[in-house]
Amino acid sequence: MIYESIRLDKNSDVPMYRRLYESIRGGICSGNISVGERLPSIRKISEELGVSRTTVEQAYQQLCVEGYVSSRPQSGYFVEASVRNEFSAEPEKPSAREKTPGIRYDFGSRYVDSRSADIELWRKYVRSVLSREDIVNSYGHYQGEPELRRQLVTYGMTLRGVKSTADRIVIGAGVQPLLSVLCGLLGEQAGRVGIEYPCFPQAERVFRDFRLNIVELPHDKFGVTAEDLYSHKIDVLYLNPSNTESMGRPMPISRRAEIMEWAERTRGLIIEDDYNGALRFKSRPVPSLQGMSGGDRVVYLGSFSKLLMPSVRISYMVLPGDLAELYWERGVNYNQTSSKVEQLALAQYMRDGHIEKRLRRLRKIYAEKSDLLMTALKETFGEAARIRLAETALCVDVIIECGMDSQRLAETALERGVKIIPVDCENGAEFRLSFAGIPSDDICGGVETLGKIINHNLAEN
Amino acid sequence: MIYESIRLDKNSDVPMYRRLYESIRGGICSGNISVGERLPSIRKISEELGVSRTTVEQAYQQLCVEGYVSSRPQSGYFVEASVRNEFSAEPEKPSAREKTPGIRYDFGSRYVDSRSADIELWRKYVRSVLSREDIVNSYGHYQGEPELRRQLVTYGMTLRGVKSTADRIVIGAGVQPLLSVLCGLLGEQAGRVGIEYPCFPQAERVFRDFRLNIVELPHDKFGVTAEDLYSHKIDVLYLNPSNTESMGRPMPISRRAEIMEWAERTRGLIIEDDYNGALRFKSRPVPSLQGMSGGDRVVYLGSFSKLLMPSVRISYMVLPGDLAELYWERGVNYNQTSSKVEQLALAQYMRDGHIEKRLRRLRKIYAEKSDLLMTALKETFGEAARIRLAETALCVDVIIECGMDSQRLAETALERGVKIIPVDCENGAEFRLSFAGIPSDDICGGVETLGKIINHNLAEN
Repeated sequence: MIYESIRLDKNSDVPMYRRLYESIRGGICSGNISVGERLPSIRKISEELGVSRTTVEQAYQQLCVEGYVSSRPQSGYFVEASVRNEFSAEPEKPSAREKTPGIRYDFGSRYVDSRSADIELWRKYVRSVLSREDIVNSYGHYQGEPELRRQLVTYGMTLRGVKSTADRIVIGAGVQPLLSVLCGLLGEQAGRVGIEYPCFPQAERVFRDFRLNIVELPHDKFGVTAEDLYSHKIDVLYLNPSNTESMGRPMPISRRAEIMEWAERTRGLIIEDDYNGALRFKSRPVPSLQGMSGGDRVVYLGSFSKLLMPSVRISYMVLPGDLAELYWERGVNYNQTSSKVEQLALAQYMRDGHIEKRLRRLRKIYAEKSDLLMTALKETFGEAARIRLAETALCVDVIIECGMDSQRLAETALERGVKIIPVDCENGAEFRLSFAGIPSDDICGGVETLGKIINHNLAEN
Repeated sequence: MIYESIRLDKNSDVPMYRRLYESIRGGICSGNISVGERLPSIRKISEELGVSRTTVEQAYQQLCVEGYVSSRPQSGYFVEASVRNEFSAEPEKPSAREKTPGIRYDFGSRYVDSRSADIELWRKYVRSVLSREDIVNSYGHYQGEPELRRQLVTYGMTLRGVKSTADRIVIGAGVQPLLSVLCGLLGEQAGRVGIEYPCFPQAERVFRDFRLNIVELPHDKFGVTAEDLYSHKIDVLYLNPSNTESMGRPMPISRRAEIMEWAERTRGLIIEDDYNGALRFKSRPVPSLQGMSGGDRVVYLGSFSKLLMPSVRISYMVLPGDLAELYWERGVNYNQTSSKVEQLALAQYMRDGHIEKRLRRLRKIYAEKSDLLMTALKETFGEAARIRLAETALCVDVIIECGMDSQRLAETALERGVKIIPVDCENGAEFRLSFAGIPSDDICGGVETLGKIINHNLAEN
């Protein structure tokens, strides 16, 4: 048990939270506390050890920050294996993935499918840029490398119907630094900011950091309603019309039209976060709001993390004319956040036509995998489960009555080597299966094992 | 003349500013408008062509954004040469630098000295990280790679006396994304923010974007005074104690002590931006305020752009305990901005002891170059000029009475192939000579040419 690993020297002058942290970390590193193990709840450990809950919280936070432990919403704290104390200089074999020992089927992976990665090709481009001293040894353009911005004009137009020019595109290392620049440009114009609830947490964090007046908007089955935008007197609406967080499907065209009309009428601004907008594989991607509306009342946000590879942080924002002008005035006082070398590698990669090839390949892979997963789920659970594919989110949500709640099911599955993401729900168990990272060959085996757990539990009850 | 190159089709339905922009761009690309040439003032071109000043402004802005033209404060708009329309896939020879034709001696370069760069070694580390699929194909840690944060603890302590632990370090792609996170953490605590005037413009931009209450503080010869901090009721002070913008020299220890006392007494917070703090070459670097004060009331900011190479954007922030705890709570909702591959390359580079070697080398190079420049200036201008070395800013400021104002002198020098940075001043001419990028061999020749221009002008008057 975990308490055997915890030794707290009561007479030390090291803060108590630190001692607890070190003790648990020691247990993990020595193997006394196993990977995948759930740590006792904060309440429980505080009672058992006679320390305050704040102390336990601090210790857990620190373990999370350093990657020894991860916090799963509604489930508690679990020991992660992916932590190595020292970075190894020896290159590992390309196939060697960090995999949590004990996890055989990982439906919660943050990796993307390795078959799609084509890392060798990407390396070639990075190396080519890296070989140019003039590039490595000088600052990048604050707005983003002009070569990449020019490529993005064509890319955005072809794939997402985005209307832009290179001078209205701003590049950044992810959506957050771009939203920070945008909030600065908007100033008082960002009076009341409407967000879908639940909202992409990283975007909400930026709005909260800027202490904007945030209005959480309800939604019907098509998303946010224009009625709510009028009645809540929204000035700026943050939206992910290709993939609403709650629904995992695109907003229908009729609703889009209503929202664009709202923006025109009230001089409102739409921030369109087109996360994975181009990745749709079951049907044609829905063109961007920005292009449909003409672009005057929409700021478009696009990203490459899921498309290229997760370690590459390149996003871009297309500003409407008035905001672009304000940006040009101030631009020189913004530093670029995205790696210059990676930006130029991407520009060449795009110029040579690889991004379209990659997108086609990704769509094919994800279509196959989602078919496999859906079929396996339907065969295993039949009518007992409600199964829904969230296409651009690359996952399937499952609701099932199985005599266990979501957390209990996730824990039991983990004990049997299947990692799933529990979702809070009122009746039965709900869980999410991410199919981006799991190899195709493992999908059926994973679902089968899940089926056995659930059927076994139903038989026992 | 430039007007001959401008053809404005009055019957086009393309916006007028766009036509003007395209016309000037065409002139530049075809060579009709020369590199280094000063464009007519906005007022003048608007009168000559009968278009509004806003139209001209928009066209110029766009040319600036795309890099065809640069705006120099108080001087106007100049045609830049460093713009290539297409990114060449062919690697250039390592010695090929982007150099503005017509500029023979560049004292305004944003490059760093190529001898110091050791690009081959850096490439080796990037390639080694790039070869690991598990790294490239997964997300990085939101707070920054743990391996790098561990290296930074030792580095900060050894070189700058910074007291930190890996969990209190946050990495970001430059100071701006870090300040954005910090402003979010501070929330209402950032009531009145004191900045030195003039302030590092990129930092001021972030504070203004967050619409903080900014107080521009005057300074005596030692920097900001504690008296002003009390009387202006400052809550947060942004400071660059190693290199105040206006003075280019570190704040003396007595003033540091007063400011730390202010922070302790009033529970104020100091944001210590230690830009180039480790680069001091004439004397031992002054240890950080953060380490001197114990770190409770100081947020420390450090950066690697000048130390490593300009294209690499890695900065870090050390948070005091209370802000670190708040960060841990929210951390998972912040995305990392700095390139994961470059972070890990830096971690290994540091682990192998290269950063200390590099720093020693840089100090030696910059000491030699500043000696060369100071000697050449003294020999050429003798008592006629006031010459001041700004050590960590890697430049020398010169004030001289020569019958021209700063702008006129800079323009004349540019015509003769010497690029200098004009500084606004009341009497005579003031200019800044950056010695980071210019090769040592060119320093004497550049100063000599400057001397001829000035002496020639004095003889004429």
